Amino acid sequence: LAQLAQELEDYRNLEAVTTDGVRISLCGNLEMESEFKLAHKHGVEGIGLYRTEFLYLGRQQPPTEEEQFEAYCSALDKIGGQPITIRTLDIGGDKFVAGLNLDDEANPAMGLRAIRFSLQEENLFRVQLRAILRASGRGPVRIMFPMISGVAEIRACKRILREVITELEQEGLACNPDIPVGIMIETPSAVMIAPFLAQEVDFFSIGTNDLIQYFLAVDRGNQHVAYLYDPFHPAILRALKMTCDAAHAAGISVCICGEMAGEPLYTLVLIGLGLDGLSMNPSCVPRVKRVLRHVSKQQGEALVEKLLQLPTSKEVSATIDQQMRVLLPDLFARPLL
Amino acid sequence: LAQLAQELEDYRNLEAVTTDGVRISLCGNLEMESEFKLAHKHGVEGIGLYRTEFLYLGRQQPPTEEEQFEAYCSALDKIGGQPITIRTLDIGGDKFVAGLNLDDEANPAMGLRAIRFSLQEENLFRVQLRAILRASGRGPVRIMFPMISGVAEIRACKRILREVITELEQEGLACNPDIPVGIMIETPSAVMIAPFLAQEVDFFSIGTNDLIQYFLAVDRGNQHVAYLYDPFHPAILRALKMTCDAAHAAGISVCICGEMAGEPLYTLVLIGLGLDGLSMNPSCVPRVKRVLRHVSKQQGEALVEKLLQLPTSKEVSATIDQQMRVLLPDLFARPLL
Ligand SMILES: [Mg+2]
Ligand SMILES: [Mg+2]
Repeated sequence: LAQLAQELEDYRNLEAVTTDGVRISLCGNLEMESEFKLAHKHGVEGIGLYRTEFLYLGRQQPPTEEEQFEAYCSALDKIGGQPITIRTLDIGGDKFVAGLNLDDEANPAMGLRAIRFSLQEENLFRVQLRAILRASGRGPVRIMFPMISGVAEIRACKRILREVITELEQEGLACNPDIPVGIMIETPSAVMIAPFLAQEVDFFSIGTNDLIQYFLAVDRGNQHVAYLYDPFHPAILRALKMTCDAAHAAGISVCICGEMAGEPLYTLVLIGLGLDGLSMNPSCVPRVKRVLRHVSKQQGEALVEKLLQLPTSKEVSATIDQQMRVLLPDLFARPLL
Repeated sequence: LAQLAQELEDYRNLEAVTTDGVRISLCGNLEMESEFKLAHKHGVEGIGLYRTEFLYLGRQQPPTEEEQFEAYCSALDKIGGQPITIRTLDIGGDKFVAGLNLDDEANPAMGLRAIRFSLQEENLFRVQLRAILRASGRGPVRIMFPMISGVAEIRACKRILREVITELEQEGLACNPDIPVGIMIETPSAVMIAPFLAQEVDFFSIGTNDLIQYFLAVDRGNQHVAYLYDPFHPAILRALKMTCDAAHAAGISVCICGEMAGEPLYTLVLIGLGLDGLSMNPSCVPRVKRVLRHVSKQQGEALVEKLLQLPTSKEVSATIDQQMRVLLPDLFARPLL
């Protein structure tokens, strides 16, 4: 076990590159200060998903611009100059509702969440945008909007963002006016119109947890239907493929930041689908990198082509399993740690 | 007004055919006995969606096989030999839960609903299948399963259906062993894997109400986000197109039974998308037929091609509106009745 730990740690300083020379960016999903040490230890290349909910939850008043600005700058410091993708508030009507009475939402997962909440509570949103933009004057910050379901929504976000940039410039406050703007792809509608959305933004980040939920119409927190929640579902494979293809056709990058990203069993499939980056719990990085360095993108593409012919999750899952055992018997012939 | 009523009634005996000779089947969505008179009056060609929930709701015990059999036979009688598509129980965990304690479902719309409930409560399901199959011995009955999200689910339904057929044959009870089997296309995953699902069944019926909800991740019953619920969303157009194309590639028919089917403003678009049938509230049939008889499928296809280029709902909606005013100024230049 100690040997394995050492072996994995050795991966920290190795490049995340396939045997056929394709660089994949491996980033961390994180928020709390305590997680940054771990991120360094495991060799992440930046924060692919910086969640901001922790700043808002469990308090009476939303955080001030100054508080947020400090938190974002502190994250920049701690990650040592690597890029950070800050996601704007991704909160459900069931969590934080500043004066709104939403506890009667029958289906909060399909309710006033994330960007919908921000666009409704525009003042709160502007405070967050100001803080993020000011942090972008201090280091490599990207901004990402969650739960976008249509072109009008991202255009509304970009309009407000531009207004805030103008405001900051007039106040003489530093910010990056060309801050890269991205969206989470996590509603089925976003997948369907990915070619249009790709014209509007600089990058996509696929949030597989919600994506799977909505595609299958399954609340994975519901024990009665959790059996249907399935990352191997042929519909999910197709959704990922459509999203990657749309991004690349428009010349933008696409990464994934759901739980699938950190699962070594999926690494080859994700590379084959064309993902440019994987953002995960930092502790997953070494194991994913180990797989990555032992396979080729071409092998991934061949596997994906095969998987797209299969009608059921069971066959998809069995085929991936079998392929990984063939390619990397040492890693996949025994149960993964 | 009386003149308009007469004019619409005149459509009852006219064929539902486009100017370029394409027959579209116009059926009714109904359940209660009282609705059948209306159906005749408005000239439906059968029941495209016979809902069975009314048999189960508001009572302590589920309906017996005999009770259901009688209800289905009575519907066959009343519709006078026209085909009936019976949908198996489409009930949510929030409605009817025979001994299950589901009132804690956080998101019932993504919970134990419809076919998921039937497959879990298999005994209840078998009783309904027996009643439907026995009715199929009496007249032109088709069976349809709601909320299918994967190939494994429809295969499970078909396996149970075949077992029940064998059972009835052994008991010497009449039934149609070749009863046409269809599914509702209403989850985003069903759209993505429509080519696989089309291999498993005899027909598709698109349930646009749920389809739109899930694609946009919007509970349309939620006042805070109802503004996002939008049949004109470019993602919905694409979903309908993918479903129609998959059905036709496999040589099966595809109809639509959500509210969109009964809205004359959408009729040309739906024809252009390739729908073979529209099933709606019977009172909508004359107005939809009137539009149908004044447009061509070719005009519909040209319109759809144009719409698929548009990134926002607003542009889709405006383009449909404008096109209908040009093609049918008498009907669309003034507000519809
Ligand atoms: Mg999410
Ligand atoms: Mg439905």
